[in-house]
Amino acid sequence: MELRHFIESQQLTPELLFEFFKTADDIRENLAKYSNVLSGKVLATLFYEPSTRTRLSFETAMLRLGGSVVSTENAKEFSSAIKGESMEDTARVVSGYADGIVIRHFEEGTARKASLVSRVPVINAGDGKGQHPTQALLDAYTIYREIGRIENFKIVFVGDLASGRTVRSLCYLLGKFKNIEIIFVSPENLKIGSDIKEYLSRHNLNFREESDLNKILGEVDIIYMTRIQKERISEEDYAAAKGKFVIDEGNFNLIKSASRILHPLPHVEEINLPLGLEQNDKRVAYFRQSQNGLFIRMALLRKMLGHLA
Amino acid sequence: MELRHFIESQQLTPELLFEFFKTADDIRENLAKYSNVLSGKVLATLFYEPSTRTRLSFETAMLRLGGSVVSTENAKEFSSAIKGESMEDTARVVSGYADGIVIRHFEEGTARKASLVSRVPVINAGDGKGQHPTQALLDAYTIYREIGRIENFKIVFVGDLASGRTVRSLCYLLGKFKNIEIIFVSPENLKIGSDIKEYLSRHNLNFREESDLNKILGEVDIIYMTRIQKERISEEDYAAAKGKFVIDEGNFNLIKSASRILHPLPHVEEINLPLGLEQNDKRVAYFRQSQNGLFIRMALLRKMLGHLA
Amino acid sequence: MELRHFIESQQLTPELLFEFFKTADDIRENLAKYSNVLSGKVLATLFYEPSTRTRLSFETAMLRLGGSVVSTENAKEFSSAIKGESMEDTARVVSGYADGIVIRHFEEGTARKASLVSRVPVINAGDGKGQHPTQALLDAYTIYREIGRIENFKIVFVGDLASGRTVRSLCYLLGKFKNIEIIFVSPENLKIGSDIKEYLSRHNLNFREESDLNKILGEVDIIYMTRIQKERISEEDYAAAKGKFVIDEGNFNLIKSASRILHPLPHVEEINLPLGLEQNDKRVAYFRQSQNGLFIRMALLRKMLGHLA
Repeated sequence: MELRHFIESQQLTPELLFEFFKTADDIRENLAKYSNVLSGKVLATLFYEPSTRTRLSFETAMLRLGGSVVSTENAKEFSSAIKGESMEDTARVVSGYADGIVIRHFEEGTARKASLVSRVPVINAGDGKGQHPTQALLDAYTIYREIGRIENFKIVFVGDLASGRTVRSLCYLLGKFKNIEIIFVSPENLKIGSDIKEYLSRHNLNFREESDLNKILGEVDIIYMTRIQKERISEEDYAAAKGKFVIDEGNFNLIKSASRILHPLPHVEEINLPLGLEQNDKRVAYFRQSQNGLFIRMALLRKMLGHLA
Repeated sequence: MELRHFIESQQLTPELLFEFFKTADDIRENLAKYSNVLSGKVLATLFYEPSTRTRLSFETAMLRLGGSVVSTENAKEFSSAIKGESMEDTARVVSGYADGIVIRHFEEGTARKASLVSRVPVINAGDGKGQHPTQALLDAYTIYREIGRIENFKIVFVGDLASGRTVRSLCYLLGKFKNIEIIFVSPENLKIGSDIKEYLSRHNLNFREESDLNKILGEVDIIYMTRIQKERISEEDYAAAKGKFVIDEGNFNLIKSASRILHPLPHVEEINLPLGLEQNDKRVAYFRQSQNGLFIRMALLRKMLGHLA
Repeated sequence: MELRHFIESQQLTPELLFEFFKTADDIRENLAKYSNVLSGKVLATLFYEPSTRTRLSFETAMLRLGGSVVSTENAKEFSSAIKGESMEDTARVVSGYADGIVIRHFEEGTARKASLVSRVPVINAGDGKGQHPTQALLDAYTIYREIGRIENFKIVFVGDLASGRTVRSLCYLLGKFKNIEIIFVSPENLKIGSDIKEYLSRHNLNFREESDLNKILGEVDIIYMTRIQKERISEEDYAAAKGKFVIDEGNFNLIKSASRILHPLPHVEEINLPLGLEQNDKRVAYFRQSQNGLFIRMALLRKMLGHLA
């Protein structure tokens, strides 16, 4: 199964997903085996919205496959964007230089537009309030590794569910699997969108909204925390939402020992645990999650830039 | 013939130019043959004025030759420039680390100054209103590939001819060849400078200024469009010049089928063609032109950093 | 002797220092021998405070050892820092991608904090008014190469001794050696801190403060000039300090022919010598000093990222 461009998480079939999981597991164990598979290939990372973490994850993934990278850290301010050039023209030109493009943009739909004019594979690394499909991929991979399955589990999404594209992307992906129960816990002003709810209904996924996080904690396998996205909402909305739903020493032990906390990071006050707990308690999975991003992106780049069917 | 530094397009003799054309053609056909010729070499790109396109083109060129790159995307704001350091000191220091320097700066004459103190080859990637000689090189290469010759042709330069360093650089280069007829079409307030006109006269090139673009379109082999450089002129000058000379569906078919539109890109409203035309009509050459930049810069870096005589 | 993280210059024992000097000398002579020693390794450079020179020096060092680099030029503005993320979380996450981290930050103590959560070696590339230990390392290496010894000499530190972390780091390092006489010459408002004076006393180093630079110039082996750090002090302090202590044609010849001027660079008006002198007079050592930074950082990275005992 080929993946020409990767724009939204719905593109991933279960087969493809398990193929990536398997490759990522193998890469983790046999890193050296993969150290030349993209030798001679060049990846361009075009970031119109800064994201050190995501960019460095993609770039390290490319380098560890033997490829190389050209990069722009803040295309919005530094590039021809200020001269009035369309993002499509940039993508088209860069697709004449590089073998693949990773694009992050502040506007929804940008990655798709880029893919329409690009001669080389385009990967969406986040487009405004749209999607962040490689995050969904690494989230799914983390769930699979941490609880041993991607079906038959309960997950609670907590926090800013209105602007969070990682939640949106992961929900679209979970819609492909069976017996998943989803709970949404968010401030009144940052509830999950109706597009997601309709999608989940259409795919027969069980979901509900709750307002008491502590009541839910003991019941779920995955707690997916998110940050209130201060930079995308009004000051009033932020003030109303901040600190509303928090994991700290007060409620941490309500979580079952086999359950896991995920977070797309960066986390701020919504997780407030002492360093010892964060480093040693198995239930804290978000740093393993971020490292999974490296291996799963290696699997993705290997397939897409290696043009494997 | 050695090329120690590349500061202005006049340095290119016809022999050297054809050598680069030949190498670029060979690189295009036999990319793998060149994948190690600069192995172990490091190129530094020092951009005091952001230009994602030019920087990525140079960097990809270096990587595809097996070399590696260190880069600064916005040296003006990020570097010791804010501490009061002279650009020459930066260049001198960096020339102690790297094997070559590509410099882009907002002030005319900077690349030359850098070359005087650098221990390694310096390439001018645009210096204020001065020159952009590698653009001239890729423009000449594009003309050669598109119409099969770099002599005996007619070219019209359209747009902001006052601040456009690409036009200046290309004119200096065309002065080396025979039977070229040059027409300048520009808003009243952005006419070509007298330095260029004197240079062309001295080299016996035929040139004239015209004010009706449509009258010219059917007559020339190359239409070289340029953007009104908003960021280098006053608001008044911009308002007077914007939208004055445009290629769109209304006049596109005045262009002969063997003729070609070039543009150094980014283009904005001066070219306004539907996507289908831009992608499929042979007369639109500017995306091929930008890709030629990769191959010709590979030829240039190979010679200069490989210290080929 | 292993060096897990490199946070402050006091970590360097004389044995370790001489080991680095020896390796750096060998690298200089036999560059090709080292071109693959870090093949497959990835270095992350996290710069929260821009410094083109230091960053490019580290990055080139890594590339010349066969490794590769992921980089952020201005993490302060571009990264999750603006989303409220702690630097420690960034370091922890990046330590899951890369094999080593070089960190530059505007706050004292940051590199140490990063080292506490990182899985991979952390190198301090300057932390606020704290330390800049790799600068001390290259300074010591330069003294050793230029005058043939790192003991039994006289050094004057000139300029902004209050905010200068390079002076602080070098003093801490010199405290490990014998028979060094230190003189401090600085504007009244930018004197060396009492922490350094106490440290030197404790280590039985001879030091004194003087106010007449010209009186000292003929007496010392090393003149270590520093820039008044405009960006770290008030306008009043800057006005009072600027131009107070300068090396120019007027006093240059007071310097003994075997003595050397060092400067961590960038230099501004505190050194005002004609280009001919700067390029040809042996006493001007600061451009050799900056190049020494490349070789000594190669020695450092080779040891730390190669995990050599």
